[in-house]
Amino acid sequence: MSLITLERKVLEKNDVIAQAIRNRLREKNIFAINLLSSPGSGKTSLVERTIFHLKDKVKMAVIEGDVQTDLDAQRINKLDIPVVQIVTNGACHLEAALVRDAFDQLDINDTQMLIIENVGNLVCPAGYDLGETTKVVVLSTTEGDDKPLKYPAMFRNASVLIINKIDLLPYLPCNIETMKTNARSINPSLKIFETSCTTDKGIAEWCSWIESQIRK
Amino acid sequence: MSLITLERKVLEKNDVIAQAIRNRLREKNIFAINLLSSPGSGKTSLVERTIFHLKDKVKMAVIEGDVQTDLDAQRINKLDIPVVQIVTNGACHLEAALVRDAFDQLDINDTQMLIIENVGNLVCPAGYDLGETTKVVVLSTTEGDDKPLKYPAMFRNASVLIINKIDLLPYLPCNIETMKTNARSINPSLKIFETSCTTDKGIAEWCSWIESQIRK
Repeated sequence: MSLITLERKVLEKNDVIAQAIRNRLREKNIFAINLLSSPGSGKTSLVERTIFHLKDKVKMAVIEGDVQTDLDAQRINKLDIPVVQIVTNGACHLEAALVRDAFDQLDINDTQMLIIENVGNLVCPAGYDLGETTKVVVLSTTEGDDKPLKYPAMFRNASVLIINKIDLLPYLPCNIETMKTNARSINPSLKIFETSCTTDKGIAEWCSWIESQIRK
Repeated sequence: MSLITLERKVLEKNDVIAQAIRNRLREKNIFAINLLSSPGSGKTSLVERTIFHLKDKVKMAVIEGDVQTDLDAQRINKLDIPVVQIVTNGACHLEAALVRDAFDQLDINDTQMLIIENVGNLVCPAGYDLGETTKVVVLSTTEGDDKPLKYPAMFRNASVLIINKIDLLPYLPCNIETMKTNARSINPSLKIFETSCTTDKGIAEWCSWIESQIRK
């Protein structure tokens, strides 16, 4: 069996499980985000700020994916939100089977929104459907405006781009307009938010968008 | 054939090619660095500053690895240093066979140092030997001080850690002492440099260390 054939079989199996998750989410009317980025772009901080803004209005649950440690789940747990940590033990992305098992551990009665925070990796997770409603990619200003061109699959597959850490722009060579132009050259229909989890700028707009998706 | 067996076979084949590269580097007395990090940690900027500081003293060549585009090779080419770009076309790491083919394209007569800039990814490249003399991992202050704990393989396998973007520390919640403690808890023998490619702080120390390795 060639590697390519084997890889295709792994992906096909993943897609079947992802579709089952998607059906369950639809049945329960849960809006699910697959949150993707490099390590350190601020995914967990964004989840924290989103919970802070929406927890009185939207019933949420979180699945955390990490190569190692449950540090992120500990952070979410402090906010009294149901959270399950997946430790991939070296694997570079989440797969649908891991998400299904985590999902089974969550009490999802009345849950309106599920955030799945993927492993920090701008390459591999792009190829794995987790049954999510929407893929959201986070890119921080500190990573540089050329990244959409260098990691195109992630930006092509996502529906939403969050440009995070905009409070640091005065200290960086990053041009946010170039970053947006580059991202849209890969995916013209990307919806783009600009946020800072330090100053809270842009978080209200992002949360309003989430509410509009939940009401759909 | 199971996936694990297949993966082991791929890694074994990689190791054979990596060893052949290592033998050639030793024969030619070339000090080779495998430069690893997340996307946007400043690897290419670090290569540029290293070239600027050392180009009159050390004959260098560069192999650039990217998922897509030759933007990084274009940057190095401007500095009149021999450079070959590897585009992995979606693959998340460099493998020894790609490096061997790139190496064959370089005029390495009198070359004393080869920098292999890996694909931006803090997970997958950790497992692939490229025949390098030394693995150097770059972690920028903007990524947060918890990253060595969350991506341990990379920090365990590297000999050197460069903490980059230290000029941004006043604007960040990152504690550099915690970052170093976390890194050394994974790998107590890590040699650590602190650098800024914007202010040039720490670049002289890093370049002195390179010179000491070349003289070995």
